[in-house]
Amino acid sequence: MNASMSPNLALNEEVARLRAEGRSVVHLGFGESRLPAFAPLVEQLRAGAHRNAYGPVAGAPDALASLAGYFERRGLPTGPHEVLLGPGSKPLLMALNLVLPGDVLLPRPSWNSYEPQARMAGKRVYGVPIPAECGGIPDPDALPETIERARRTGGDPRIVVLTLPDNPTGTLATAALVERVCRIAEAEDLVVVSDEIYRDVMHRPDAPFLSPAEVAPDRTVVTTGLSKSLALGGWRVGGLRVPPGARGRDLRDRLVAVASDLWSTLSGPMQQVAAYAFGDPPEIRQRLAASARLHGAVARAVHAAAVAAGATCRPPTGAFYVYPDFEPRRAALARRGIDGSAALARHLLDERGLAVLAGHHLGDDPGALRFKAATSMLYGDTDEEQEAALAAPDPLALPHVADALVRVAEGFAELGD
Amino acid sequence: MNASMSPNLALNEEVARLRAEGRSVVHLGFGESRLPAFAPLVEQLRAGAHRNAYGPVAGAPDALASLAGYFERRGLPTGPHEVLLGPGSKPLLMALNLVLPGDVLLPRPSWNSYEPQARMAGKRVYGVPIPAECGGIPDPDALPETIERARRTGGDPRIVVLTLPDNPTGTLATAALVERVCRIAEAEDLVVVSDEIYRDVMHRPDAPFLSPAEVAPDRTVVTTGLSKSLALGGWRVGGLRVPPGARGRDLRDRLVAVASDLWSTLSGPMQQVAAYAFGDPPEIRQRLAASARLHGAVARAVHAAAVAAGATCRPPTGAFYVYPDFEPRRAALARRGIDGSAALARHLLDERGLAVLAGHHLGDDPGALRFKAATSMLYGDTDEEQEAALAAPDPLALPHVADALVRVAEGFAELGD
Repeated sequence: MNASMSPNLALNEEVARLRAEGRSVVHLGFGESRLPAFAPLVEQLRAGAHRNAYGPVAGAPDALASLAGYFERRGLPTGPHEVLLGPGSKPLLMALNLVLPGDVLLPRPSWNSYEPQARMAGKRVYGVPIPAECGGIPDPDALPETIERARRTGGDPRIVVLTLPDNPTGTLATAALVERVCRIAEAEDLVVVSDEIYRDVMHRPDAPFLSPAEVAPDRTVVTTGLSKSLALGGWRVGGLRVPPGARGRDLRDRLVAVASDLWSTLSGPMQQVAAYAFGDPPEIRQRLAASARLHGAVARAVHAAAVAAGATCRPPTGAFYVYPDFEPRRAALARRGIDGSAALARHLLDERGLAVLAGHHLGDDPGALRFKAATSMLYGDTDEEQEAALAAPDPLALPHVADALVRVAEGFAELGD
Repeated sequence: MNASMSPNLALNEEVARLRAEGRSVVHLGFGESRLPAFAPLVEQLRAGAHRNAYGPVAGAPDALASLAGYFERRGLPTGPHEVLLGPGSKPLLMALNLVLPGDVLLPRPSWNSYEPQARMAGKRVYGVPIPAECGGIPDPDALPETIERARRTGGDPRIVVLTLPDNPTGTLATAALVERVCRIAEAEDLVVVSDEIYRDVMHRPDAPFLSPAEVAPDRTVVTTGLSKSLALGGWRVGGLRVPPGARGRDLRDRLVAVASDLWSTLSGPMQQVAAYAFGDPPEIRQRLAASARLHGAVARAVHAAAVAAGATCRPPTGAFYVYPDFEPRRAALARRGIDGSAALARHLLDERGLAVLAGHHLGDDPGALRFKAATSMLYGDTDEEQEAALAAPDPLALPHVADALVRVAEGFAELGD
């Protein structure tokens, strides 16, 4: 079993401690959309308080219908018996690990809970480098070789996890890459787990999006949730879609069986929230669009700061992350004793008050000078500041956002000195 | 992995289907306290809606302090760093299965999720018969022999689970029995998992209660939750207490690590509920007392019906269950083709519209004529009926409660014919 806390959650708690001690920390180390709960969502939660009875394990009928419609409107024909809800997408992903046979292929880097979950379920994990142009997907040029090597050494890779758009790189795999990975999944008989929790956080509203569930419908499971797109990380609402047909129905039955012993059901009031939010009413669509616009503006500013400091960095187009690589500054950093991701992140926190998540926590090479910077906690400390950022035509011009970005830029720039 | 849903949840969904088809079913098959959410709890949930940020994995400081106080007031000195919260006690028990080494000893019968959870975590499970006088505890006369046999056959029993008071028998192990089991746990180096989720549902307010955490403090983990005592099954709030000292701190760290990858944190609004309810304010203590009184009155009535029908049955003193044994009627039942718990439960549902949970689902001998009857869903179908039952000096005199009890009594009596 893993003996330590999720590194992102551990860092989040360290930042809280430092702040309680009076330290000023700019928190780029936690993938949370730090915005107030949208008022209509609060209303739904309050209205759902009477739901104190145990509901059906998979979800209440209204919430399932709504979640099915959510996928349907995103190009994936879905019935209410092809989805289920859970207290966040984490337990849903864990349930997948418990019911799907075989070992797991992960993009490297990728979100830090995929690997420990797979290991808790007794699986082996194989990292595959991401392509040069985007993350969230194993490089199709490297994937077959990793599968072959895994099999040669006693592994049984049967699952590949994609993150679309990606945490930690803030990029979206192109349609061509998704298609290539899906063809490999078909040839090698892999189940595709497509984590699309950031799907509604594409920075450009008209950005094309191809789900593996469109390319390989019979073997793709999709997960989603309200934590990222609607800033509800603390409310814990996740959803999952199985493939259509008998194989998908069987998978869902097995997931529901695990869910019944693992968490019973999503809490009733949150089912009411899910029934509302996954229904995509106009005010929710507006909120999603405004949030994605803000996330994009700030992520691009942090990206610019990293590039200005001499890092290479994929331009972000979705989610709220950038993943700079300070390899071009290796010699200068080495002279200061910074020779890997742990030292780099420690330096930024101790010397510059910038909390970032070191790349090795995401499966990346510990010797690489890479880290994840979450850009979604720079919108201010109060509800008022955050709502102002959301409403502003140019959020970067708001003093509290601009100040935070200056500290980020100065901290990064110093790495380039 | 277990391929089928928790039998109690599956039965609950079958009852919902039958009722949707117009069948009249008296639901004795699901361990839910079917009462409205208490108004002050609803207020807390609503007030906590703003807690939409990810909180600390173990729980928010106010909720942890409150939960520690809850245990403290029940005779168990506890600091806020010796407890954690989760979305129900189920995931907390699963996390225990993932971090505690060794195989599991369970009373037989016992709650139906203990065994599948242990198996999901790769553990072997050994059932131990319960004593004649009460359930929820392995018979100390049988426990050492089971441990020895397990070790002889390659097992490694290191955990014993107790349920105090018990689901499914509705009884509480005596102090003498708790002490004997704890002495065995010490001699055999077992961790005691004491599931005390029904602790506040003792029918007599002055009933003595001895927790294994008082007898074997260094090796006992206690779990609890709001689902049963406050009728909040659909809200999903659970709590756990580790032993004091270094061993407990280490266990808690490992539980928090698993929690961080499995469910992140209890939802923020529910943390506010937990902070309030575990604080034991006077109105909550009153509600607990009124609920326990109602549960006791109805459980005793169902017990009387079972005994009148010729069953043997331990008199219930806690929780809201009775566990009758129709062995005295075996010959008569056999003539009607009823020769075990599955046939008995099926007969009661199909012929009498009484949903009960067959004993084999709880680990009991499939040939035994035993079932669990949950008595907590007989308080009426509407909030008004349920609140009336809660307020009534003699709830059995209320027509809607009396009618349900008549159907139960008639259904049981027919088994004795």
